[in-house]
Order: sequence, then structure tokens, then C-alpha cells
Amino acid sequence: MQTLKVNLGERSYPIHIGEGLLDLPELFAPHIIGRQVAIVSNKIVASLYLERLSHSLAAYSVISVILPDGEINKNWKTMQLIFDALLTARHDRYTTVVALGGGVIGDMAGFAAACYQRGVGLIQVPTTLLSQVDSSVGGKTGINHQLGKNMVGAFYQPQAVLIDTTTLNTLPSRELSAGLAEVIKYGLICDKSFLVWLEKYIDDIRALSQVALTEAISRSNTAKAFVVNADERESGVRATLNLGHTFGHAIETYMGYGTWLHGEAVAVGTVIALEMSQRMGWISIQERNYGIHLFLRAGLPVIPPAEMTEADFLERMIIDKKVIDGRLRLVLLRHIGEAVLTDDYPKEILQTTLRANYNALVHCKS
Amino acid sequence: MQTLKVNLGERSYPIHIGEGLLDLPELFAPHIIGRQVAIVSNKIVASLYLERLSHSLAAYSVISVILPDGEINKNWKTMQLIFDALLTARHDRYTTVVALGGGVIGDMAGFAAACYQRGVGLIQVPTTLLSQVDSSVGGKTGINHQLGKNMVGAFYQPQAVLIDTTTLNTLPSRELSAGLAEVIKYGLICDKSFLVWLEKYIDDIRALSQVALTEAISRSNTAKAFVVNADERESGVRATLNLGHTFGHAIETYMGYGTWLHGEAVAVGTVIALEMSQRMGWISIQERNYGIHLFLRAGLPVIPPAEMTEADFLERMIIDKKVIDGRLRLVLLRHIGEAVLTDDYPKEILQTTLRANYNALVHCKS
Repeated sequence: MQTLKVNLGERSYPIHIGEGLLDLPELFAPHIIGRQVAIVSNKIVASLYLERLSHSLAAYSVISVILPDGEINKNWKTMQLIFDALLTARHDRYTTVVALGGGVIGDMAGFAAACYQRGVGLIQVPTTLLSQVDSSVGGKTGINHQLGKNMVGAFYQPQAVLIDTTTLNTLPSRELSAGLAEVIKYGLICDKSFLVWLEKYIDDIRALSQVALTEAISRSNTAKAFVVNADERESGVRATLNLGHTFGHAIETYMGYGTWLHGEAVAVGTVIALEMSQRMGWISIQERNYGIHLFLRAGLPVIPPAEMTEADFLERMIIDKKVIDGRLRLVLLRHIGEAVLTDDYPKEILQTTLRANYNALVHCKS
Repeated sequence: MQTLKVNLGERSYPIHIGEGLLDLPELFAPHIIGRQVAIVSNKIVASLYLERLSHSLAAYSVISVILPDGEINKNWKTMQLIFDALLTARHDRYTTVVALGGGVIGDMAGFAAACYQRGVGLIQVPTTLLSQVDSSVGGKTGINHQLGKNMVGAFYQPQAVLIDTTTLNTLPSRELSAGLAEVIKYGLICDKSFLVWLEKYIDDIRALSQVALTEAISRSNTAKAFVVNADERESGVRATLNLGHTFGHAIETYMGYGTWLHGEAVAVGTVIALEMSQRMGWISIQERNYGIHLFLRAGLPVIPPAEMTEADFLERMIIDKKVIDGRLRLVLLRHIGEAVLTDDYPKEILQTTLRANYNALVHCKS
């Protein structure tokens, strides 16, 4: 087991990563203050892991809340099911919510924990690679609004994050690939040596080598924790974690939540950011292709939906949370391994980037 | 103008109290960081004050959101109107929400500011006595759930609270009385000399003397700020601010939100707490009657609804936020001017208190 720490003063918490952590009651106990626990999960994950987790929490009065999964259900109506269950079972303000599932479950259970009686305990038990390297750490919680993704939510830190790497054995390979989009992202924004490591071990990761998975998750979270420590509420450097996300969110919104996986949209969004960074003269064509190649090896899409025009992108990007007073800020790569958040770019470069022929670009790549 | 300060480190903020503050742009400007402002109000208050407030905010891009008012509308569906308006007008994360109205508007606008894009700016401009002395200060925001009042919300501090005492000139006298319930409460829990002052000036307050109002509001907020400074997230002493509220919430829930005003339910709830404190042997019959007399002079009810039984109370009190592991903690008076939060009381005293004949008690009082 590897243990990292997110340092946020009195809101600091550990991230434990390893095989079989679900079965270790002693990892949960220090983070549960009352006698009541509510496990929030979805049908598939619950059928696989709820019994084991409940066994580890046998010392407490436990209820479980099974939510419909998917971005399309990440809304207030679904979250209301959590409040209904907590109130019906008379859970008090010393209850602890345990989020067992992927990013959608973690975001909703986390936001519910932030809001229930103005804030109760929260333990994240992420079961997808995406949530293990991204959404379970850092305290971002929330739901979607029909006019924008993640527009309503809270910054709310968990008491602990428990990552059981064996849960990835049951993850569909499309979702494993989606998680790798965020893993590659950490290398691109702040850790070139991690990219070198990934090039070497990406096939082992896809083959579910526990050693390679633990290392990839640990290095991803180290990068994330470092950035979150420096900027919890995203007033500066934390925004670089959103490399590819502004373009990616536009794809998700255009296609309808759930059609593309978040990680797939981020992969294509990052390819667009690579292309724009190259057009800015900040990275070379070879470096751009190096990034694209990693996404392809991870089993990810790298070409935007053919039906999306420049206008389709811009219209959706303008309601991004990184907009200040109408100016659209973008995360771009100054170098491979160094991201910047900037609104200082010629508008024409953004436009030609969105009009570029990605199909040709990917197939021409040597 | 009087100015108090709530000291919460980087979340500290001023409370300005005085006549005509609505018309002073210089009081708003230091607390607005972006170019966008959203005024949230209700129909009646907007018809009286929206134009003046908008004039003071003319330097910004301002939208207004008019909500249906009343506890019955303090729910997610109503709050959604705020998110719809913010997203439609493309307000970014540097927008500032200005809550113009009473407690219901302040609670919903505050919770919306806490959640919109995970937190934006907030200025409270309370226009009822109740919100001026209570809900606008201290950062409690939230909405009701059909199973309990204020069960979903956030601790979210505003950037400033601006109290224009002349807004009370248009407040119905029943609502002025309701606000006085909380004013009297501050004296009972922590400031006996304030009770002496109130006895002398309560008629002036009800006659809307600006001098008496400013003093009453300022002393109430001084008491509240003192308690909130000591215990922002209500792990201890802050709970004493809820004197009368556990009983009062039971009345509100039983009668249906909005039938009784919150302050009216708190007045009766506090009378029940006075009665129980007397039965505990902590205060004398004379002291109990002294408290009841003040509520009567404030124009408030002091007798629980005749149809509510002991069981009706207990059933609703058990889901109160002050319950830990099924034990009901109550705020009682150890002395007049000194409240305690305790679960150390004989159950029979609670039961006989709830069965007491308040009608007889009030009329026997000399």
C-alpha cells in the first residue's frame, strides 16, 4: 500500500492506494466520527463490491443508497435520493457518506455530503481509473445543469480517499482507457519524466499489472495533490489541471452527456490543445505528435466529432468556468511538461485550430 | 452608520447598519470583484427597493432574479431559477450575488452563491428585522426538505452585510414582532443588560424609532458575531443561538411551513424552553414570567398550537440537527442571560414540559 497526503491545514487527508483495501476496516475507522454510515453507489458497482465494503463497516449502522449512474443522471433529482434516504433513516450531522463508484457517484455523493445538514463526513472509494486519478482527490463535487456541466457544486474535501486497485479488474476496457486520458494529462502539464515512464509501461497498465497501476495512480495523485495543495480553490495554477477540458466539455455538451466518456472528450480536447500550442509556436510538430501517439496507444479517440463546427465549439466554451468578464482563458502547453492558463493568444489561432483537419493530421503523423 | 466586524480570518466581513445605506455605492464597491452582479429578491421587496439598489450598482452589469417568497418556496426548484438566470446571462465565477429581502431570500440566494460554479461572491442586504438580526449574519444558508427544515445547505460567509434600517418602515408589524423574537433571544442567551435595555425601549422599536432600531440591531449582531467568531461551524457554543428553535421547528413542521412565521414559532419555542428551564430548577417562576412578558410586549404568541400533542413535538424534534446518535440535545437557560446545550436532563421533565398547560400559565402570570 502506498499512502500520499493532501496538505490543506485542518482539511488535510490521506490517499491510500493498494490491493484489497476494501477489506481493511482499520483504514476506514479513523475517519468515521459518528455511528452512522451511508454508502452511496450504483447498481453495477454495488453488485460487485457493496457486500465486501459493508463487511468492513460492520461496526456501524449502515444504509446504502443506489443511484442511477451516468452523466445524464448527475443532477439534483438523483441527489435528492441521497437526502431522502438520509432523512428517512434519521441520519444526523455526524453521519459519514462513503462514495463507492466512479466519478459521477463521487461527485454526487460528495456534493450531498457537503450539503446535508450543511456538511457531514465523506470518504471516497473510487472504483474507476478516472475517479482514482482525478475526481476523488481535490474536493471538487457537483452536478450538471442543462446549460452547463458541473455548474452547481461545492469545494468539499473528503476525510480520506481509499483506492483499491483490484476494483479495476472489473472495469470495462473502454473506461480504463478513458482514465488514462487524465493520467497522460498529468505528464503533459507538469511531469515530463512521467511521460517517459508511461511510454514504457502503458501496455502493462492496459493489461492490469497491479504494480504498474499502483505506480501510475500514485504518480498521478502526487501531481494532483501538489497542484491542489498550492491552489485549493482554483484561483491560479489548479486551472492547468483542466488541460483539454474546455474543448472536451464543449464536445460532451454538444454530443449530450454520456455519449462520449469524459476521458474520451478530454483526450480529444487535449489533442486540440496540443495542436493550438503547436500553432502558437510553443511546441514542435514532433512534440504534438508524441502526445497524440500516447493517446492512441491508450486506446483513446483523437479526432473531434466530424459534425462539430468552430461555432459549435465557441458557443459552448464561452460558458466555461474559466471565462472572466467574457474573455476565454485556455490551458495550453508552453512546453511538453509545462502548462499555462492564458487569455493572451490571437483569436485567429484559436479559430484555425478549431477548423484544422484532425483526420489528416493524425494519419499523416509518422 | 455603525459598523461591526465578523472575524473569521480570510473570511472576515463587515456589517454596516444605518439609515439609507441602499443608496451608497461606495459600501458595495469594495466587495464586488468582477463586472457582473445578480440581485435576488422577491416581488414585494423588489417593487419597493430594486430600483434604488440597481442605481447604486449602475457601474456593473446587473441582472435581477425575482423569486416566489415564503418558507413553502424555500426549496431546490425555486433556487433553480437563480441558476437558470445566471447561466442564461452567462455569469462567470467572478459574479456577485446580492440578496435583497428577508431570511428566505437570503438563505436561498446565499446557498445559490455557495453552489454556483462552486462558490461566487455574496452580499446580504436584509430587509426584515428577522434577517437583519439573525439569518444574514453567520453564513448559514440552505433550503428545506419535505422531511425537515434547513436540512440541505452550506456554511457560506458573505463578503459584506448591509443593513438599511429604513427598509423596516415598510415591514408589516407582524413581521417586525417576529424579528423581535430573535432580538429577545440574544438577551436571554448571553446578555442580561440587553434585556433591561429592551424592556425600556421595546415600544420605541415597535414605533420604528431609527435610533432604537439601530441600537437593537447592532447589539443583536454583536452577540451573534461574538458567538459565530467563537464557533463558525456550530461544534459548540453556536448551538445556543438556537434557543427555542428545536421546539419552534417542530411547530413550523407540524403546522406546515409558512402558517406560523419563523419568529412566532421561536417565541413559543423559547417559552417552552423557559418553562423547561424552570422545571429543571435553573430559573425561577418570576424569571420565566419575565421572559414571557417580553414576548407578549413584542406582540408575539406564547402558547403552543392547542392541537399539538407531546408525541407531535417529539416526533419532529428527533430529526433536529442537534441530535447525535439518537440523543436529543436541547438549548436551555442555566440562568437568564446564560444558555447551555445539554442532553443531560430527565426525560420526564421534557415530557411534562410538553404537556404543560401554557394557557393557564400565561394567564396566571402576574
